[in-house]
This record gives sequence, C-alpha cells and structure tokens, in this order.
Amino acid sequence: MTPDTTPAELEQALAAAAAAAPAFGAAEPAVRAGWIRTVADALDAAVDELVPIAMRESSLPEARLRGEVARSTGQLRLFADALVEGSLLEVVIDTADAAAKPVPRPDLRRVLVPLGPVLVFAASNFPFAFSVCGGDTASAFAAGCPVVVKGHPGHPELSVRTAEVMIEALRTAGAPDGAFGLIQGFDVGVIALKDPRITAAGFTGSVPAGKALHEIAVTRPEPIPFYGELGSLNPVFVTQAAIDARGKEIATGYVGSFTLGVGQFCTKPGLLFLPVGHGLQDALTEAVGGVAAATMLNERIKETFDTGLTRLEKVEGVRVWGSGGATLLQTTVGELLARRDEILEECFGPVSIVVEYDGLDELRSAIAAFDGNLTATLHAEETDNDLATELLPLLTAKAGRVLWNGWPTGVAVSWAQHHGGPFPSTVGSIHTSVGVTAARRFQRPVAYQDAPDAVLPAVLRDANPLGISRRIDGAISTGEVKR
Amino acid sequence: MTPDTTPAELEQALAAAAAAAPAFGAAEPAVRAGWIRTVADALDAAVDELVPIAMRESSLPEARLRGEVARSTGQLRLFADALVEGSLLEVVIDTADAAAKPVPRPDLRRVLVPLGPVLVFAASNFPFAFSVCGGDTASAFAAGCPVVVKGHPGHPELSVRTAEVMIEALRTAGAPDGAFGLIQGFDVGVIALKDPRITAAGFTGSVPAGKALHEIAVTRPEPIPFYGELGSLNPVFVTQAAIDARGKEIATGYVGSFTLGVGQFCTKPGLLFLPVGHGLQDALTEAVGGVAAATMLNERIKETFDTGLTRLEKVEGVRVWGSGGATLLQTTVGELLARRDEILEECFGPVSIVVEYDGLDELRSAIAAFDGNLTATLHAEETDNDLATELLPLLTAKAGRVLWNGWPTGVAVSWAQHHGGPFPSTVGSIHTSVGVTAARRFQRPVAYQDAPDAVLPAVLRDANPLGISRRIDGAISTGEVKR
Repeated sequence: MTPDTTPAELEQALAAAAAAAPAFGAAEPAVRAGWIRTVADALDAAVDELVPIAMRESSLPEARLRGEVARSTGQLRLFADALVEGSLLEVVIDTADAAAKPVPRPDLRRVLVPLGPVLVFAASNFPFAFSVCGGDTASAFAAGCPVVVKGHPGHPELSVRTAEVMIEALRTAGAPDGAFGLIQGFDVGVIALKDPRITAAGFTGSVPAGKALHEIAVTRPEPIPFYGELGSLNPVFVTQAAIDARGKEIATGYVGSFTLGVGQFCTKPGLLFLPVGHGLQDALTEAVGGVAAATMLNERIKETFDTGLTRLEKVEGVRVWGSGGATLLQTTVGELLARRDEILEECFGPVSIVVEYDGLDELRSAIAAFDGNLTATLHAEETDNDLATELLPLLTAKAGRVLWNGWPTGVAVSWAQHHGGPFPSTVGSIHTSVGVTAARRFQRPVAYQDAPDAVLPAVLRDANPLGISRRIDGAISTGEVKR
Repeated sequence: MTPDTTPAELEQALAAAAAAAPAFGAAEPAVRAGWIRTVADALDAAVDELVPIAMRESSLPEARLRGEVARSTGQLRLFADALVEGSLLEVVIDTADAAAKPVPRPDLRRVLVPLGPVLVFAASNFPFAFSVCGGDTASAFAAGCPVVVKGHPGHPELSVRTAEVMIEALRTAGAPDGAFGLIQGFDVGVIALKDPRITAAGFTGSVPAGKALHEIAVTRPEPIPFYGELGSLNPVFVTQAAIDARGKEIATGYVGSFTLGVGQFCTKPGLLFLPVGHGLQDALTEAVGGVAAATMLNERIKETFDTGLTRLEKVEGVRVWGSGGATLLQTTVGELLARRDEILEECFGPVSIVVEYDGLDELRSAIAAFDGNLTATLHAEETDNDLATELLPLLTAKAGRVLWNGWPTGVAVSWAQHHGGPFPSTVGSIHTSVGVTAARRFQRPVAYQDAPDAVLPAVLRDANPLGISRRIDGAISTGEVKR
C-alpha cells in the first residue's frame, strides 16, 4: 500500500498549487495548450509501463486500458485545441454606445478566467479516463487551473506513477511548479476540500460519498463549486416495433453493454423496458449465460456488489432470469412502481433488470418513476416517430444524454458531449464532466469596463492578436474590434 | 401591509409553475421571446401607475424609478432578442465520425434546456431592476423557466401590482398559466426554497440572509443551484498621475457615486485609495457637504445604516472628514491592515472611506487585503500603463468587473456585462446576474445521441429551420448540418 500523504506533503501540494495558479492561469492559450500536449505525449510514451500497473491494480484487461490511455490523451489534446481556438474563453465585447437608452453604455469586455487550484477526487473504475489524468484534470488544465488529485485507493501505484509522468512532462514543457500534484488518503482529501486555497472540486464516485463531500464544499466558510458524478441507472426503453425489427440484436447489445467492464460503468444500463410478449427471454438468458466471470475492481466493490445483488434478488416481484458471470433479473412495471425505491437502487456491477410493460401508459408511468440519470435510451423505429416525439421530452427531463438505438456505455469525448444529469446522477447538473464544455466548471467571468487597449489581456485587445473566436457587439467573429 | 401568502396560495403558485414548466420551456425561441416582449410592453404601458407606488414605498425619486423601468423593460427585450438569435441555447453538434480514435464517434447534439421553476428573492434597493420584473426574472424567462418571485417587504404594493401587470401580459400573449407568480412573506420564501418543484433560486440581499438561504438550497434532499448576490465594498484605487491630471474631477465623481441612490447600491464605492499628499481633502469635504439628506428605502435599512455608521466612526484610526446628507471617513492603509475586519465590513448607505496609501507597496498590500467584490476600479493615466498591467490581474482576482477611470454604480445591461464576483460578493461566482449570459444559470445541457432528424427539437435539426447560431463540428455557423 502507498502510505497516506503526510500533513507536510499536503501543505506542500496546496501551497505549490496556489503559488502556480497566477502564472498557470495567465499563460497565453497556445502556451498552456503546449503544456497540455506535452503531458499527453508523455502519457502515450509511458503506456507500456502504466498499463501493466493498471492491469494489476484494477483487474481490467489490457486492450480496455490501452484504449483508456488513448482516450485520456486524446481528451487532453482536444482541450488543447479548444483552448487555442478560443471559444473556451467565451470572450464577449460590447463597444461603447453613447446613444444607448436609458443611459450611455461603456465599453465592456468579458472573458472567463480560471478559478484557481482545483481538487479532483479520482474514480476507481476508469484508472486513466476518470482518474489522475482524466477528464476533470484535463478540463481544469484547459481552464487554467492547477490541479491537485486525490488518488483513488484502488490503484495507488498507478496514481503515483501517472502523476510522476505528468509532473515531469509539465516541468519539461516549462509549466510552473505546482501546476499538478497528487495526494492520497481519505482524511487528506477532506482536509484539502476544506482548504481555502482550493477553489473548486470534481468528484466521481458513489452517491453517499459524493453527497457528503458536496455538503463539505458548499458549507465551507467560503463555499466552492462541487461537481459530483454520483450514480445512475440509465434505463433503456424499447418499443414493440424495435422488437419486431431487431429483437435479438437488442438482446445481445443490451447484455454486452451491461456486462462491459464487469458492469462497472456509471453508464451501465441498469434496466431494460420491454413490451410484454417480447419473446426475448431465451435470447437474453443465452447471452447472459455466455458472459465469463471476471474479477471486479477491488474487494470492497465486490463485497458491495454481492450485498446489493443478494438484496435485489430478494425483492418481491423480482425474478432471476440468468446468472453466472453476470446476473439478469426480471420484473414488471406494476411491481417496479409498487416497490420503486427497492428496485431503483443502483447496484454497481454486472447485473441488470428486464422490466416488462403492458401498453404505452405503463411505459409513460415507468419513465415518470425515475429520478435523475446520466443517460436514457430509446430503441424505436421510424414508425414510432410520433411516439418518440412525445417520449423524448420525458426522457430529457430525467437524463442528460438521450440515446437513440444505441447503448449508453460509450461516452465519446467531443464538443457536444454531455455527461451529467439531474440529481442524484450529478450534483451541479448545469455542467458536464466530459466534453469540451467541461472546462466551464472551473472558470468565472471577469468584465473590463473602458480599459485602454494597452492594458487589456491579449485576448480582449482590439486587434485580436491571438485570432480567437469572440462575440463582438452580439455577433461571433475572429476579426478585430472597430471602436 | 400586504398579508403573507397563505399555504394554499403558495401551493397554488408552486403547482401552477410546475404545471407550466414543460410548455413554457418547450416553446420555440421566437414564441417565448414574444411573450417576454409583451411583458416588457405592458410594464412600459403601466409606468405612470407603477412609478408613484414605487416612489411612495421606496422613497426613491421619480426620474431614477422611471429609468429603472426602462432598464428593466430594455433588459427583457434584450433577452428576447438573444433568445431568437439562438446563442443562449449553446447548440453544439458533432456529426458522426466512423474513423474517430480510439472508437468511432456517434452523432451528438447538445442544447441547453430549462431547469424548471425558478424562485427569485427580490431586493429592496431596485424596486424594478432587481425585483419582481428584474434581471433574475428576465433571465429565467429567457432560459425557459417559470418564475415565482418572493417579493421584498420593502415595496409590497408595487410587487403585487407589477406581478398583476406581468401575469395579465403573459395571459394575453398566450403563455401557459403559472409562468409567473408572486409570493410574499419570509417564512413563505423559505418553504418555497425547500419545495422539490423549485429547481434553482436567485437572490439579491445581505450577506447573512444570502448565506442562510444558500445553505438551505444546497443541503436540501435534492440540492439546487443558488445564485446569491450578497455584498460588496467596491474599492477604487487612484494613482498619483490620475490625481495630477484630474484630482478634483475624481473627488466629485467619487462623492457622486457613493451617494447615488442614498448610497443604497450594491456597487457603491465603499473605499477610495488615494496617495498620501493627494491634496483632495477640501474638494472631497466640500462635495460631501453639498449632498442633501434623503430618506432611505425603509426604517430597517436606516437603523442598520445608523448602527453601522456609528460603529465605523468609532473604529480606531478612522476619522470623520465630512458628514451631513452623507458621511466621508478617512484612514490609512496601515490602519486598515491593522483593523481589517472592522474597516472592511460593508455599511449599506451613504458613507465611504478615503484610505491613504504611502507608496506602491502599500497599494499592493491594500488590494491583497480584500475578499471578493463585485467591482474594483482603477483611476490611472497612460503613463501608468506598466503599473496598470501589473495591478489589473490583482484586481480581477478580487472582483468580477474591473473599471478604468469610471465609477462602479452603473451596471450596463448587455452581452458582455458581468455582475458577480468571488465570495462573499456572490455565491455562485462562475455566473452573472446581469447581462445576457445570466440565463445560463437556469439551464442544463442535454445531448441527443444518434437521434433521427424527424424526432429532434427544431433547434437541433440538420436544416436549422430556426436559423440560429450553432457550433457544428467545432465551428460556429448558422448553416445546415451536412451528414
């Protein structure tokens, strides 16, 4: 075991992050983008060393982990590109208007600036993509914030080694010391969260842990934003037409999705709603029977899963349709509504529930029964378009990402991605933890009023010397400001 | 006195807001913009009736209140325009990319959707612009959220009459019933804040009240965003060169700003930092001597001001330079740093403190002594550009808006405005309460994955039928999507 960070080491990490913040935040976009790309390159170069450590500590397979490194480094590069493009800064310039009513309008120039040091609580289930070098870190870097990661105890050696690679890369690239740091230990993380030098926090983990940390963050003497991704059931709703067109494909796709990564995805489809008479029981149980047993991330997760599965199997009205490397349960909408809280409690791991609905009213009732989720999925055909047009707003009310004829376990990293959803899937549902707009969580606006060009930051100057995208008097432009 | 809202009336208001939310939020931008413009027109038409009520209840003068109505209705129209333009929806479309690494990328289309009913706690000091028909209401409407305003007890009749005008206008325009409601009473506001149908809250008022309500909002079983504007000192820093160039103008400008509206502005300049030997004492005391006594907003504010002023005048090292209709105090940076917490406690009303600094190191120390503020101002000349380039980042670290050679009491409503700042000037400092981007507080993203064009909301369809501004594969465009 890697020992907990000592109080002296924690103080050093926080002091260094605070000291680095002004220079790290003030670096011109292309310069900071260069630092971020150097980190990506260093991680790619270290993949052969890092992946075996990750395999040993997480029990995840090599191909998956290599893909995760590629995803993480691609994510860093996407943020670097977005930083240079300039939209991340949301520059808005309103030139002075002496004729404005009811009073003349001054020259106002708004830009997003970094909040300061960000604390990231790493997750266990993605040792790269949601851990030390994951999306929270990448987006905070893009925002201009130094990052202190509280490593997950599930992969302590990987955390240390990843951090070393990143710190060395940042030093090589010329970033200020303290731009990145790693701390370890439960109590250490809580102490850091309360420290006034920490200006925001990101978290991926369980609902109870996320709620407890959220409360600490928002009731500090100086409250800070806390972005927590807590838990999600990710229901999938299937129409009769979709069953008719590709029932078997849906059955195998579903089992593949809910057992991916041993069911240890926050986007695992936890429930599949099928019309009664779907005729897929055999296909489903056959697919589940073919799932090989696999080791879970760690003993604690395995114990929690076993307890949760045993609990779920005993809920009245829930039947076991298949078990082995994964477990498939079955119930009905009527039973789900009667025992909603028991059935709709997330069980993290390779289990999912088929829920049979009898008619569209039951389908609507089932959708209404959910709290917030990261995703909701509809499997439907073109003949369902009227129904889909009615159901999609119900689904977007319950989830941050709505999929059509897909499976929620993949989360593409792009400009348009949204990984977040109404509470309790996240706290801070107005922002995303994946995708380019995730940087917005760690920025605050500053407006300059009537400042002369010579003293303005380069991104706000008339001539637009960095050539970034800006909103000038209401219209987006990469041009210069004409006063 | 207007009686408190009864439990039955509160239930009716919340139920109506919740019932209105889907239709109000789903209305196409141009349709909702039309509703908002109808509200603006109705308020303008009612100005002759509303302003006298406001004068009687707030003791503010007619010209100021007429300007405030114009500001409020202009604000509503600006939001309506921005809604139609489309940027408020932050549409981002990434078309599918089968060649993306490490995995193929689906078609993803992100749009901001309204959170749901918003609770607005109205302020006393702007009976229009930060009250029933103020910026929180306008921005929530633009976001697509029904609004329930908890009226300020300082102007109860105006609140009721303003709400009646707005409700009638919304009904005439065809908006769903419940899109707007008014409640009154301290306990009633707290009950509403805890209600699960309320999805976000805006607040303008004192630090203690704001902190207490914030804590309720973020520790509910389902935490909600709380945007509070609490208090601000708005320091002004003046260089020797600025004194040399226009010392007297600065003296009169300062007194005019801190006594505007009887000093009852959240952006009142509470401290003016002058270099020792500035020679402005006579000009300042003369200007203060010319300020006529005026009635404050209400008895409670007057009592709090009197208590605060008496306290401040007794702080060791604080001297009275002038008093009458307004009070001017004086101290030094050394004394301020020695009794920081006593001197840097906001006193809402017509009082401000001249603080003399001896050299640039003292000026830097003074800036560092501040917590978060809505504004910070620098008065400097072109010969100060090197100094200004050094000081501006120190000021943006402490404030959300940084003014050059101006006075902070005017807050223009435009695209680029930012009215917000680090804690304790606001909670939720990553967003603004004034300006077009204020709507972002009441929206959350939703991403559609691989949904066919026919079932997508109009704003996300390939053909861009509403002609709004969207980011397509990384670039802003009003064009159509080519798949």
